[in-house]
Amino acid sequence: MDFPNEPQIPMRLCNLFLRDNSSQQWLQLAEVDGTRGFPIVIGTNEAHEIQRVLTGTEPPRPMTHQLALESIQALGGQVERVAITDLKDNTFYAQLILRTPDGTEHAIESRPSDALALGLRVGCEIHVAESVLEAVRTDQSGQDPLDDPKDF
Amino acid sequence: MDFPNEPQIPMRLCNLFLRDNSSQQWLQLAEVDGTRGFPIVIGTNEAHEIQRVLTGTEPPRPMTHQLALESIQALGGQVERVAITDLKDNTFYAQLILRTPDGTEHAIESRPSDALALGLRVGCEIHVAESVLEAVRTDQSGQDPLDDPKDF
Repeated sequence: MDFPNEPQIPMRLCNLFLRDNSSQQWLQLAEVDGTRGFPIVIGTNEAHEIQRVLTGTEPPRPMTHQLALESIQALGGQVERVAITDLKDNTFYAQLILRTPDGTEHAIESRPSDALALGLRVGCEIHVAESVLEAVRTDQSGQDPLDDPKDF
Repeated sequence: MDFPNEPQIPMRLCNLFLRDNSSQQWLQLAEVDGTRGFPIVIGTNEAHEIQRVLTGTEPPRPMTHQLALESIQALGGQVERVAITDLKDNTFYAQLILRTPDGTEHAIESRPSDALALGLRVGCEIHVAESVLEAVRTDQSGQDPLDDPKDF
């Protein structure tokens, strides 16, 4: 396990943008107790999965993230939180933090989009490392960075 | 849990076909101790994931199926087998069978492609219900149905 020691800032998903005929989509995270925020480019599959979570739409058969979540729950585990821990070469690195029945936490390396797709299903907390947030925040003016915030 | 009572036939993946610019790919399963086989149409994402497993190619960050497998293993679970259990309206239904640390089995509903992508990572058994295999087998002549079998 690798738990960073720096402050972890609670964030929320505030926007999801889906464009037809594009292999890249994006979402936007905003600070829960502040005005900082930033976008993350994600894949189309993960964007559609997050859209299904937000709209409560379930396909006839479970898709990959639902399979992962049901597997975790069948083994008595809980999705504790999503942590975006690092930024290297313009790529975000994240962890899905699981809690075992005996209370032990395990951090599973993940893409942010996968961790968010799972975490949003259970409404867990989303944390971003302070240094990552400071490096990518798009609200340098101090204004809310979101043109059209939605409370997803 | 829903474990079917009919015979479950051990199968193996014998071919994976990837076509550029197509949203549908397919794989072929063959009976381990026999000559029956059939194809399954799968999505491009899952086909690429299975290709990564077969070729031992790991992307820089874990993709969705790897995240699912690492989550299962972090919770002490094992992927026991993949079972293709049903066919309705030309759609296959499958289960990923997990074993908990205390030996209990849990069947998680899944698309065949997702279950196979996970199961192939650990080399678990692949079972297909006898009635499903009989309904879709493409070897009615009794010959091996595979034009160019590969031992994946």
